[in-house]
Amino acid sequence: MPPSAHDKLLFTPGPLTTSLSVKQAMLHDAGSWHFEFNHIVAEIRRRLLALAGTSRDQGFECVLMQGSGSFGVESVLGSVIPPNGRVLILANGAYGERIVRMAEVLKISHLAYRTAEDTPTNPSAVERILAQDPAVTHVAAVHCETTTGILNPIQPIGQVTRQHQRRFIVDAMSSFGALPIELESSGIDYLVSSANKCIEGVPGFSFALARRDPFLATAGWARSLSLDLLGQWQGFEKTGQFRYTPPTHALLAFHQALDEWEAEGGVTGRGARYQQNHATLMHGMCSLGFQPFLPAHVQSPIITAFRHPADPAFRFDEFYRRLSDRGMIIYPGKLTQIDTFRIGTIGRLFPADLEQLLAAIRLSLNEMGCALPFNSTPQPHAIPG
Amino acid sequence: MPPSAHDKLLFTPGPLTTSLSVKQAMLHDAGSWHFEFNHIVAEIRRRLLALAGTSRDQGFECVLMQGSGSFGVESVLGSVIPPNGRVLILANGAYGERIVRMAEVLKISHLAYRTAEDTPTNPSAVERILAQDPAVTHVAAVHCETTTGILNPIQPIGQVTRQHQRRFIVDAMSSFGALPIELESSGIDYLVSSANKCIEGVPGFSFALARRDPFLATAGWARSLSLDLLGQWQGFEKTGQFRYTPPTHALLAFHQALDEWEAEGGVTGRGARYQQNHATLMHGMCSLGFQPFLPAHVQSPIITAFRHPADPAFRFDEFYRRLSDRGMIIYPGKLTQIDTFRIGTIGRLFPADLEQLLAAIRLSLNEMGCALPFNSTPQPHAIPG
Repeated sequence: MPPSAHDKLLFTPGPLTTSLSVKQAMLHDAGSWHFEFNHIVAEIRRRLLALAGTSRDQGFECVLMQGSGSFGVESVLGSVIPPNGRVLILANGAYGERIVRMAEVLKISHLAYRTAEDTPTNPSAVERILAQDPAVTHVAAVHCETTTGILNPIQPIGQVTRQHQRRFIVDAMSSFGALPIELESSGIDYLVSSANKCIEGVPGFSFALARRDPFLATAGWARSLSLDLLGQWQGFEKTGQFRYTPPTHALLAFHQALDEWEAEGGVTGRGARYQQNHATLMHGMCSLGFQPFLPAHVQSPIITAFRHPADPAFRFDEFYRRLSDRGMIIYPGKLTQIDTFRIGTIGRLFPADLEQLLAAIRLSLNEMGCALPFNSTPQPHAIPG
Repeated sequence: MPPSAHDKLLFTPGPLTTSLSVKQAMLHDAGSWHFEFNHIVAEIRRRLLALAGTSRDQGFECVLMQGSGSFGVESVLGSVIPPNGRVLILANGAYGERIVRMAEVLKISHLAYRTAEDTPTNPSAVERILAQDPAVTHVAAVHCETTTGILNPIQPIGQVTRQHQRRFIVDAMSSFGALPIELESSGIDYLVSSANKCIEGVPGFSFALARRDPFLATAGWARSLSLDLLGQWQGFEKTGQFRYTPPTHALLAFHQALDEWEAEGGVTGRGARYQQNHATLMHGMCSLGFQPFLPAHVQSPIITAFRHPADPAFRFDEFYRRLSDRGMIIYPGKLTQIDTFRIGTIGRLFPADLEQLLAAIRLSLNEMGCALPFNSTPQPHAIPG
């Protein structure tokens, strides 16, 4: 294969383009029960808590879990909800629906509160449901719903949840590390994210930050051995090791990725670069006449969904292929009702990369015979409420 | 960190020492839903079936699963046993016991048949149990039990299981790719192994080979969404993709590892090198007066457990540390009744590496003041029957 510098750029929500130095950290084999490696694991757990502005002294724990982000979400859902518990799931996209599906498979009593894919969850609605349904023990929300890039207001939702003395689970997969999240003021009891999102490691594991007191009270509730969150934590506490073979190379890469995240200025610095990437993208795409799916005030800088233009010369498959041939990979849409495609602005990408993508988009559309700029009057798609 | 050539050598059952070229395959970021990457995934699935001497045409399917080998075992156990099924688990070590624990957590009806840690499962005993317990629908066995390195006779066990029309699940984690396994003549319905064992990839995923007809009849039985084996297969069939983010770098490494496995001569060539490694180790360790835990006729060439010598100058922690300081990592014991340590002979290790380890062992023991060779009269530990 060609050297890494020639890899196609990934304008997606993950797997992401990562730095060469992060990948080079994988050129080593480590023994997963050896003290040198376990020192790195302990350091990663400590630094993830620090990244969230907290620590063990402040009552939080960090648990790493093999697999993708969804494995991490299922690990939390299947481990911390008691046998007679009930979870309210706030959904406005595919990742909220995935949590609903997990609850179904795990046979966990649940209630889904859905809003349209362009509409953030309203905290008042959560308050109403919690007041009406005293059986609900947990609330689960997705911070940045990658289906559209919409941001849900986890802070007021968490405050309402805490006022009603329920536990709050947040899927912060694609936001953690780039958007500020305050565990304490947001009343978050469990936050899940993954190695290969805004911290820019490689895929292979996820992690959960857990409020210690409720977490330690979950013994015996896990519905899986491999995905037993408390069991995994106990393994770390007892031996410093993963219970089962960890993706050692992905962990070495993540350790390097945390260094690079800090060097960039943490949440502030990384978030600022993603904001610049997103602003560059939006300016260019709007100039071409593309219409973003979401209104600006609920749009995250993580990933953006664009409607297919009405121009009959536009065919997504060809568009995708032409961009791929130019070394740039975008992401298909995932909306249920409307044709969209998505462009991610996270990973080791800079505004100049977005400029390069925009130039490739313009060239590809010209080759396809599209009339630019597209007519940007709103299209007649109604969004189901 | 120092270049990979200076990494400590891992004489363990995994994570293993891998080739530099396998690790260099990870210097690339791939889009997990991109057709180029999915071509590699399809190729890996095809080649794993070929490695087992079978193919889709011959009625088998290959499913890759994120996580460690244990995630793969749980994926099979939790997905292919019906709600009213019952599994007979054959255990003579920690990995058999782990399957028992999985069945407990998953609330799957089960029966454990245990033999001593130095005693392979007797197929006649399996036959007796199956005749007596018609509720048993599945039998689960561990091929090479890494606790000791013992080999269980999966072929006659599988034949008995098939005669009784039950399904046979084999954990072939540490044997697949180096020891011959015949799916058909061994009556194996589900075989599980992992990327980071005898194929010498890096850790990050496991895989199951499944007999198609019974496998496709398992719809609705999965006890997890992430670990749903049939769901994962359906995802591959429908889109060519993993349902959830795969460890893309580990898959690129595995693709390279399969090339190197083939170049070495497949099961025959790789198995021969491991046999040479093991023979070198046994000759040297016996010369030093170490006693292997297992009798030779049940010992695999994968990993070997040695008793702690009776010499009071021998302390394992110091021994381990001195070897680590010399760049060689061995593995602690896992036996319940007897103090042992283990030395693995798989991974990118050659007889010359074992000679180097033996020299380091001799030096370390001399430094510790041990009288060599150790007195090798059998020690008074009784092995519980």
